[in-house]
Amino acid sequence: MVSEKIRSMMDSSSFIRKMFETGAKLKQEFGEENVYDFSLGNPAMDPPENFTKVLLEKAADHHMHRYMPNAGYLDVRGKVAEYISSEQQTVIQANNVVMTSGAGGALNTVLKTLINPGDKIIASIPCFMEYKFYCDNHGGELDLVEGQANFNLDIKKIEQAITKKTAAVIINSPNNPSGRIYPEETINSLASMLTSKSKEIGRTIYLISDEPYRKIVYDGIKVPSVMDAYKNSIVCTSYSKDLSIPGERIGWLTVNPEAEDYISLINRIVLCNRILGYVNATALMQRTVAELQGVSVDIELYRKKRDLLAKKLAEFGYKFKKPQGTFYFFVEAHEGDDMRIVDLLKEERILVVPGRGFSLHGYFRIAYCVKDSVIEGSLAGFKRTAEKLGLKQDNK
Amino acid sequence: MVSEKIRSMMDSSSFIRKMFETGAKLKQEFGEENVYDFSLGNPAMDPPENFTKVLLEKAADHHMHRYMPNAGYLDVRGKVAEYISSEQQTVIQANNVVMTSGAGGALNTVLKTLINPGDKIIASIPCFMEYKFYCDNHGGELDLVEGQANFNLDIKKIEQAITKKTAAVIINSPNNPSGRIYPEETINSLASMLTSKSKEIGRTIYLISDEPYRKIVYDGIKVPSVMDAYKNSIVCTSYSKDLSIPGERIGWLTVNPEAEDYISLINRIVLCNRILGYVNATALMQRTVAELQGVSVDIELYRKKRDLLAKKLAEFGYKFKKPQGTFYFFVEAHEGDDMRIVDLLKEERILVVPGRGFSLHGYFRIAYCVKDSVIEGSLAGFKRTAEKLGLKQDNK
Repeated sequence: MVSEKIRSMMDSSSFIRKMFETGAKLKQEFGEENVYDFSLGNPAMDPPENFTKVLLEKAADHHMHRYMPNAGYLDVRGKVAEYISSEQQTVIQANNVVMTSGAGGALNTVLKTLINPGDKIIASIPCFMEYKFYCDNHGGELDLVEGQANFNLDIKKIEQAITKKTAAVIINSPNNPSGRIYPEETINSLASMLTSKSKEIGRTIYLISDEPYRKIVYDGIKVPSVMDAYKNSIVCTSYSKDLSIPGERIGWLTVNPEAEDYISLINRIVLCNRILGYVNATALMQRTVAELQGVSVDIELYRKKRDLLAKKLAEFGYKFKKPQGTFYFFVEAHEGDDMRIVDLLKEERILVVPGRGFSLHGYFRIAYCVKDSVIEGSLAGFKRTAEKLGLKQDNK
Repeated sequence: MVSEKIRSMMDSSSFIRKMFETGAKLKQEFGEENVYDFSLGNPAMDPPENFTKVLLEKAADHHMHRYMPNAGYLDVRGKVAEYISSEQQTVIQANNVVMTSGAGGALNTVLKTLINPGDKIIASIPCFMEYKFYCDNHGGELDLVEGQANFNLDIKKIEQAITKKTAAVIINSPNNPSGRIYPEETINSLASMLTSKSKEIGRTIYLISDEPYRKIVYDGIKVPSVMDAYKNSIVCTSYSKDLSIPGERIGWLTVNPEAEDYISLINRIVLCNRILGYVNATALMQRTVAELQGVSVDIELYRKKRDLLAKKLAEFGYKFKKPQGTFYFFVEAHEGDDMRIVDLLKEERILVVPGRGFSLHGYFRIAYCVKDSVIEGSLAGFKRTAEKLGLKQDNK
C-alpha cells in the first residue's frame, strides 16, 4: 500500500536507528552523564555570541516573515556572494547564490536539477551515506569508488568509473568521516581529468562540492576552491557546523559563473528548490546569517579536543590519521572488525559509528563535537577496550 | 547535460515567471503603490503580536539550535497533538505528529512515503497546481478530476477515476483557489466511497488533506475533520497563512492513529522527511509555534476585505461564488476567456492569476491577502475592465 522502496529502506536503515535507540536506553539506565555519545555530528558547542545578538535584532522586526523570491532575499545572496568572492579567485554575484534548507536541501536541489533517469553520481569512499538516498530520490544512483589509503581521492579510480551515465562527481572536503582535506594538486588533477572525460563522453560532468566543514580546519591548512579549479562546479554548504545551528536548516549553493549555460542552470535549480517543497530557505535565518559572513565558533576549542583525543587514542594503541578538519576521527578497527569494536565500546557506554556506515568497513568514527567532560569521561573506556583487544600501547 | 524533465518544466512554468516579471516591471515603471498585485497568496498582514513576543523569548535561548529527532521536538509535537485533539473527535498523540518544513514539505514527505512508480494521486479541479510537481517528484502522477459547478467535490467523478494505480486522493478545503469548504456530508460520502473502493481494488487508498487555510474561514462555517470521517487519512498543514509567516516554512503532518499499520507509516514518513533533505523542521520555529496553538491573525480583517471586494465586484457585474474561507476569489472570466481578462486587468496594473493556473480555464483568481489600499486602488480598474467587457452592472 505504501512505497515498497521506502519499506525496504526502513529495513536497511534500521541499524542506525537501533544504535540511536540503544543510546537512548543506555542514557536512561545509567544517566546521560555516564554515556559517552560520539555517534552524531550534532555540535554541543553553543553558537558564537554574535549569532544570538543578530538573531534577536532580526526577530524583533515584525514584518519580515513573508515569501521572498524562491532563491532567497537578493541582499542576503549579495552578502554571501561577497564573502565567497573574498575567499577565492572566482568572483560570485548575488544571482549566482541560492539560499537553501541546509546542505541537505542544497544537494537535493542540485541533484534533482542534474539527474536524468539512471544517471550515476560518483563519490569517494569513505563518505556521508545520505548521498545514496539523495541520488535515489531523483532517479539517480550513487556510484562509490575507493579512495586512497590516506583517504585522499584516487583520481585514477574515479576516472575508471566514469561512463556516459555519469552526471556528476560529488566530493566532501574536509571529509566526513575521515577529516581529510583534499590538497590543491588533487583538486587540480580531478578538474583536468573531468575536463578531458567530459569531452570524451560528450557530456558535462559536474563537480559538486559539499563543504559544510570548510571553516573547521586546523594547523593553518587551507581548503582549496573547486571553483578556481573547474568551471562546471557547484558548491553546496550550510551554517550547521560552523555556527553550531544544525537544527535551523540554513545553507546555500552557488554555481560557478563559468559553468556552461549557467543562467539556465541557476533558473532550473531555483525551480527545483521550489517544487521539492523547500520553497525558500527560512526568512529569519537568511537575514541572520547574512550578518555573520566569515563568523564561526571558536575552532581552537575543537583543536584542543582533537589534540587531547589524538594523544590519548595513540597512547592506548589506536591507529588513525589525525584529522586536518571536521570534528571526526576515523580510527582503524582492530583486525578490520568495525562491529566488534563498536560493540566493545558500547559495553563501556561509548557510542561510535562503525565504518560500514560510511561504506568503509575496518574503521569507526568518533564525532568529537562533544563537551570536554564526555571526552574525559570516555578515556578509561577507550583504554580498557584497547587492552581487551590487545592493542600495543605507545610510549608507555 | 541536465535533467531533461526539469528543462521542459522550465518551459511550461515560464508562464507564471513571465507574470512575475511583468509585475516587477510594472512596479518599477509606475511605482509599487500604483500596481495592484493580487497574484500571490503572500499575506501582507503582519503576524499576530504574540508571535514576535514568543519568537524573541525562544530566540534568546542560546542553546536551542541543535539537531533534534527528525520528527521534531517531542514536547512541541505534544502541544500540536493536544490542539488537534481539541478540534476533533479523533485523539492524536505526540508521536502521531511530524513537524515539517511547511505544508509543501509535509506533502512531499507523505507522497514519497506512499507512491510506488506509476501510482496516481487524484485531486479535484480547481486546485493548487504544485501538487503536479509534488507527485512527479516521487514517481507518481497527478490525476485531475472535475469538481461540481459550485466547486464542491464530485464524489462520483472521483470514484470513476479510481484504478488499482490510485495511491491517494488529495483534497484542499478551504480550497485554493475557489474558497470552497467541502461540507461534512461530502467528506462523509468521500470516506465511504474510499472505504468501499479500497476493498474493491485491494489496496488502501489514503486521503491526504491539505489544510493550510483551516483557520481562515468566515460566517461561522466549520471545516469538518477528515480524521473523524476516514481512518486512512493524513493531514498536512502549515502556519504560513494563519500566522502570516510563509517565509518561515513551518508546518506539520499527522497520521490518523486508526490508519492501517500506522506506526510503520509514521516511521517511514519520518525517514522520508530526513532523506528528502528537510532533516527536521527548523528548531526555533518549532519552539515558537508550539506556544501559539489556536492563535491566528485577525480573520475579521480578511472578512472585511472579502466583503468589500464581493460588494464591488458584484456591482461591476463580475460573477463569482463568495468564498467561505481562504483569501481568494475565483471569478468567472467573461466568455470563459481567462487570458483575455488577465491581460485587460494588467492594462489597469491589476495582477491576477488565470484559471488555467489551477487547471480550470474560464476563471481568474484574486488573492486578497493585500493591504486595503491595494483593494481600494484597484476598484476603478476592475470597473473599467467590466465596462470594456460589457458586463451587466448590478443594482446601479
